[in-house]
Amino acid sequence: MPSITLGVDLGGTKIQVVAVANRRVVGQARHPTPRTDAAAVIREIVATAEEAITAAGVGHDDVRGVGIGTPGTVDVATGHVSGSSNVPGFMDDVALGPTVAQALGGVAVVVDNDVRVAAMGEFRRGAGRPYRDLLGVFVGTGVGGGLILGGRLRRGRGSAGEIGHTLVRVDGRECPCGKRGCLEAYAGRLSIERAARRKHEDGAHTVLFEIMKHKGRDRVTSSVVAEALERGDELTQSLIDQAVEALGIAVANAQNTLDMEAIIVGGGLGDRLGPAFVRRVEEAIVPHLRVPDHPPVVLSTELGDLSGAVGAAVVAGG
Amino acid sequence: MPSITLGVDLGGTKIQVVAVANRRVVGQARHPTPRTDAAAVIREIVATAEEAITAAGVGHDDVRGVGIGTPGTVDVATGHVSGSSNVPGFMDDVALGPTVAQALGGVAVVVDNDVRVAAMGEFRRGAGRPYRDLLGVFVGTGVGGGLILGGRLRRGRGSAGEIGHTLVRVDGRECPCGKRGCLEAYAGRLSIERAARRKHEDGAHTVLFEIMKHKGRDRVTSSVVAEALERGDELTQSLIDQAVEALGIAVANAQNTLDMEAIIVGGGLGDRLGPAFVRRVEEAIVPHLRVPDHPPVVLSTELGDLSGAVGAAVVAGG
Repeated sequence: MPSITLGVDLGGTKIQVVAVANRRVVGQARHPTPRTDAAAVIREIVATAEEAITAAGVGHDDVRGVGIGTPGTVDVATGHVSGSSNVPGFMDDVALGPTVAQALGGVAVVVDNDVRVAAMGEFRRGAGRPYRDLLGVFVGTGVGGGLILGGRLRRGRGSAGEIGHTLVRVDGRECPCGKRGCLEAYAGRLSIERAARRKHEDGAHTVLFEIMKHKGRDRVTSSVVAEALERGDELTQSLIDQAVEALGIAVANAQNTLDMEAIIVGGGLGDRLGPAFVRRVEEAIVPHLRVPDHPPVVLSTELGDLSGAVGAAVVAGG
Repeated sequence: MPSITLGVDLGGTKIQVVAVANRRVVGQARHPTPRTDAAAVIREIVATAEEAITAAGVGHDDVRGVGIGTPGTVDVATGHVSGSSNVPGFMDDVALGPTVAQALGGVAVVVDNDVRVAAMGEFRRGAGRPYRDLLGVFVGTGVGGGLILGGRLRRGRGSAGEIGHTLVRVDGRECPCGKRGCLEAYAGRLSIERAARRKHEDGAHTVLFEIMKHKGRDRVTSSVVAEALERGDELTQSLIDQAVEALGIAVANAQNTLDMEAIIVGGGLGDRLGPAFVRRVEEAIVPHLRVPDHPPVVLSTELGDLSGAVGAAVVAGG
């Protein structure tokens, strides 16, 4: 049996683990994220990892490294995380790397930001393989970004890639972060849901919430949005138009500053709305470019919802 | 006599040359830029370079390299330039590097964008020395940017650094580039002059144009703006407030994306308005930051109007 590297994508709703050997996914497992506390989350990460090890047909001794992508602010040197409101107990400081390392018998664990590792996944194993310079824009509950410049992941002082909180409209829509007019305030799934609820309460017609109930959900998920669009729901269409326009501005601003080769659009909502959405974003970028006749390539992800887990394995050397 | 490297800063109004030996400026010269054609501009670059060689007390044989910073689109590999409306004849393709090299007896000539070399000058010999990651924002007739990331000049595919044409206000003020709402449309000297003329023609009171005439100028130069501010001119104050606000947004957007250590604010207008203006820009950045408690250092240039010429010498190895 070859040695494997595990990649863990920790999210607010699920823990996705892949086992990678010779640059290929040879096993995987997915569990829901516990809703209780940090200790339970870490136990579930370990349980999911063990299931992926078994699925790969290997044993604990064959694991040569683990990478974890997590929301929040990551201290890459120590493997500690804090400041995530999406994962129970992760607002406070959590010794994520050291605790998982100990539970898995002392294997080396690398921790990094979830969006940055997803960009790494697409860069090394997905749609970004032909390029040295790219921006991954992950449109999900929020909007995150991961930059690869000159073939290297850009971390800055620890917070690089926050394109979701660049300003696209002065005094614009309120963002979950507390500021106004951020990209995320227009393109994040949560912001779209909030805007739809406000409009609906003000009397606007929409089938969004019927579809949500019919699917047995309590949130306007990406698939709820997609179905409303397919049914020609005007409110949803107008909110997605605004999301596309905001993405066009924010990505063009980054492009004018960095002059990259490629933009990769993914995330739960980006992947679900698919190539048609990505084409619309591409068209929305061009009018704002300093050099409109030399636009970047704009692509969908290739790894889909495995971008993060595969990227986490990549940063751990897998 | 030590060997010297020449740095040439080609601008729309002046040609500035420095002679650098052992990382110090040992001679310099400055001539007005001819208003006729590209051949005359190149002859004047050579004449200014020869004056700087003489001022350094050395001969032609002691020149080991020449760097030129120029407006326009530069092909770094060939030393050709095009697309500059500020320098006569430079809209078309100009063989700037090869022609200067031949005129100076076959010395090696490196050509790069004027704003990028100015950022290099501040990074290696000016205010940016303590940092590895910085953005130079040069507020002059237009607004240009130069990025140093990980200690290296960022060129992208040739057009990186165009922060002046990132969008700060949807459907905002018209920019000389033809788009609307760019940073340059609010913070560039030419845009400020145009906005002031419009307001003045619409009846707004201002001493700007009196000061301009009194100084014998036909443009609202940086010193005209500075004097109007000193005299408490309300229109000028309001236009500079808008410039500061726009700089705050655009620089914060770049900072949220890149998480740099330092921002250096220079250029003709930036240098002339000085530290008080730079402090205002610093304050205007913070409200838009994703991590407001970890802002970048914001600094004035140290080299002032020699940033470009010194940076040009640096890129040529001086």
